[in-house]
Amino acid sequence: MTIPERVLRQFADEVGPELFSADPVSLVMHSYDATNEFVVPAGIVRPRAAPEVARILAAANRLGVPLVPRGAGTGFSGGALPERGGVVLDLLGLNRVLDLDEAAMTVTVEPGVVTLHLQDLVGKKGLFYPPDPASLKVCTIGGNVAENAGGPHCVKYGVTRDYVMVVDGFTADGRPLRAGKATLKNRAGYDLKDLLIGSEGTLAVFTSFVLRLIPRPEATVLFVAFFPDFNAATSMVNTLFRAGITPSSMEFMDGSAIRAVERHAKFGLPLQYQALLLIEVDGRADEMDRVRRRTEEILSAGAAEVRVAVSAEEQAALWEIRRKASPAMRAFGNKKANEDIVVPRQHIPATIRGLREIADRHRLNLIAFGHIGDGNIHVNIMYDGQDPDETGRVEVAIREVFDLVNRYEGAVSGEHGIGLSKKPYLPANLDPVCYDLMRSIKRVFDPNNILNPYKMFY
Amino acid sequence: MTIPERVLRQFADEVGPELFSADPVSLVMHSYDATNEFVVPAGIVRPRAAPEVARILAAANRLGVPLVPRGAGTGFSGGALPERGGVVLDLLGLNRVLDLDEAAMTVTVEPGVVTLHLQDLVGKKGLFYPPDPASLKVCTIGGNVAENAGGPHCVKYGVTRDYVMVVDGFTADGRPLRAGKATLKNRAGYDLKDLLIGSEGTLAVFTSFVLRLIPRPEATVLFVAFFPDFNAATSMVNTLFRAGITPSSMEFMDGSAIRAVERHAKFGLPLQYQALLLIEVDGRADEMDRVRRRTEEILSAGAAEVRVAVSAEEQAALWEIRRKASPAMRAFGNKKANEDIVVPRQHIPATIRGLREIADRHRLNLIAFGHIGDGNIHVNIMYDGQDPDETGRVEVAIREVFDLVNRYEGAVSGEHGIGLSKKPYLPANLDPVCYDLMRSIKRVFDPNNILNPYKMFY
Repeated sequence: MTIPERVLRQFADEVGPELFSADPVSLVMHSYDATNEFVVPAGIVRPRAAPEVARILAAANRLGVPLVPRGAGTGFSGGALPERGGVVLDLLGLNRVLDLDEAAMTVTVEPGVVTLHLQDLVGKKGLFYPPDPASLKVCTIGGNVAENAGGPHCVKYGVTRDYVMVVDGFTADGRPLRAGKATLKNRAGYDLKDLLIGSEGTLAVFTSFVLRLIPRPEATVLFVAFFPDFNAATSMVNTLFRAGITPSSMEFMDGSAIRAVERHAKFGLPLQYQALLLIEVDGRADEMDRVRRRTEEILSAGAAEVRVAVSAEEQAALWEIRRKASPAMRAFGNKKANEDIVVPRQHIPATIRGLREIADRHRLNLIAFGHIGDGNIHVNIMYDGQDPDETGRVEVAIREVFDLVNRYEGAVSGEHGIGLSKKPYLPANLDPVCYDLMRSIKRVFDPNNILNPYKMFY
Repeated sequence: MTIPERVLRQFADEVGPELFSADPVSLVMHSYDATNEFVVPAGIVRPRAAPEVARILAAANRLGVPLVPRGAGTGFSGGALPERGGVVLDLLGLNRVLDLDEAAMTVTVEPGVVTLHLQDLVGKKGLFYPPDPASLKVCTIGGNVAENAGGPHCVKYGVTRDYVMVVDGFTADGRPLRAGKATLKNRAGYDLKDLLIGSEGTLAVFTSFVLRLIPRPEATVLFVAFFPDFNAATSMVNTLFRAGITPSSMEFMDGSAIRAVERHAKFGLPLQYQALLLIEVDGRADEMDRVRRRTEEILSAGAAEVRVAVSAEEQAALWEIRRKASPAMRAFGNKKANEDIVVPRQHIPATIRGLREIADRHRLNLIAFGHIGDGNIHVNIMYDGQDPDETGRVEVAIREVFDLVNRYEGAVSGEHGIGLSKKPYLPANLDPVCYDLMRSIKRVFDPNNILNPYKMFY
């Protein structure tokens, strides 16, 4: 679907030529995201304030110009790609912190604010915004809300959804909308706020958010524990929870991830184990000694080896092990299949076994790592994108990975969203009634299908 | 709107006469809820299993018979009243606990399970289901989910929504629907689960839920603190949060509530104060001494008087003060206006002052109490329902209470829902676009308007 030149010119005129661009460099700069797929847009529009967003939407809706909202373009599911053409709505110009209310413990921000910048800003006041997607140094709050971003801290603190109180924005035809309340309880009608969170730019365009903050934990301790088999690692997760310890992170790597990282970065990791857990506990400074002793005691009773890091430097060094999981795979190919499946926690060991069988059957370099506390497994397969045979085996393997997810009643994505990459696998992951209801809701919000069309649903 | 006798007979035939009843005693038994309003239904239908619910819905949708889902009928907003006639869908027959999985820390229950029964059942396994509406001894999980029920524990543990992972049920035309996943993260499409929670029986009928459980806290300590003015009490809430203490309950009573309770129950409460806080802290047994000392220290620095209860008996005695707030009002009239407004926490002192002005201006017996940690204020006005003048003054006062809520960008309800009682006040509490979107969503789910019609929206 190409936008006729005449329509595009009229759109540019209506939104204001100073906001519109179609120069080739800008187009290329807005043609990608973290999926390594490329779709060149028909144009880019860059509002600097909410009223301009309203004007852009009204014009796009009237003229039938598809708009693809975009933050930093760090998404892993193609949500920001202008599939089949369309104009990219670059929201990085709306990047102001509008209000920080220490007494209310809330912050009001525009979508273009970078997640780490927000964390640093509120951190200086002793406050904490927990969601921490891997791209937090560059990704933006707008993208985080559109995708309902997660991260390692979510096992204790919840995902982006749990910190968004109010979503302000505009409907597809440019009418203002405020969903949610800056209150901790709200029973005023249906929960539109949570419907908008995670809607991947398909229902409305967001122009500001009221976010809830919590007091910043004073101290953390980090443990790395090695286990001879996956069941032991999963049991440990339950043992910690049942002992009243809720770690602030519970990351895992399977045996193949441990070996890939060791080959890549030479940390001196023991290679005989099938699971590594990275457990962070946090809390008040005067409690940490006791919490540390108790956690260490429980870990030592179940793990084959435990290492502990108290100082910031030691902790940073241990975190490097986990951070190297993804780069360690680069040696194995030029292309990466990157899934973030979720299964109920009790099915993690069987899922990991299933993933190993799939990788062996198709002779693929597959590693599994991620957030064991919430059952969110990052599955990376590295392969040669120029090799049609290996590429074909990857495609079959991915389908089998999603079959495995459906067998254990999991979700096709825990953090990355559906976008284009997971769209083929969503119908089998939902019942047909829910899938149809979602498509009907899309039509209610965006009858002319101009907001990020061709995403999520068929 | 009366259902024609012929249609009602056909409906009874199709659902099965053994499930249907129109005998006068049954009709009266299903004509009320906790609002003290009465609407006699045209019939009652009592399914005992999910497939019967599907059959009932299919028949009702085809014949245009309005269905009003009902649990224990303890709602405060008229949600279970068969407004303008209709058949009450009594779900108390679906009352089985289908699964309790200790390793996964989940429980699967039907809607008719009583909340306290669920709490006791999981408590025996060392697990905890925190939502605790005041009616928990009789109210059911189905009603709790339909209203997104809260309670004192929600300030630390969140509301019903935060514990519902999966909603199973049927659409208005009887098609099966499963919203959500039994996983801690889920990005598979739009968030239909949260849309259904709090939808007050207007979007779908629920037949089972997968609920998330957490480890049961081992011990609690309870404090009662008295403050000379409301600002001091509100500051204390922030001081505790910022000190890293998240109480498991933070209840308050204003000066008039303290005096009403003392007149009624003679606890020997000091009458010179404008605010009472009931602060419960919980945690591991071996931590409680330290947490108790620290909380007491902070409370003593800000409150005029502090009492502490450690034993279960002492705690039960202190809780009685708060429990008597509502009964203490009975002396002042035969009718009660019962609102549960929410404001951002920082606006509580101004809201309490505003409530006092409204009560004084209209010479009404108004008390305020509730959940200060989340800004949820129960406003009770007791009056003589036979006195047209006083009744008129109450109506004006209630409108002014909701004006106050809107001035501070609060919500008309924090726990009770909209139903019939808050329906007139919802439009002014939402922007018109959100209100319209909610009505459009209702039409998507229930095009023939048979599910709890005339509720929430105009």
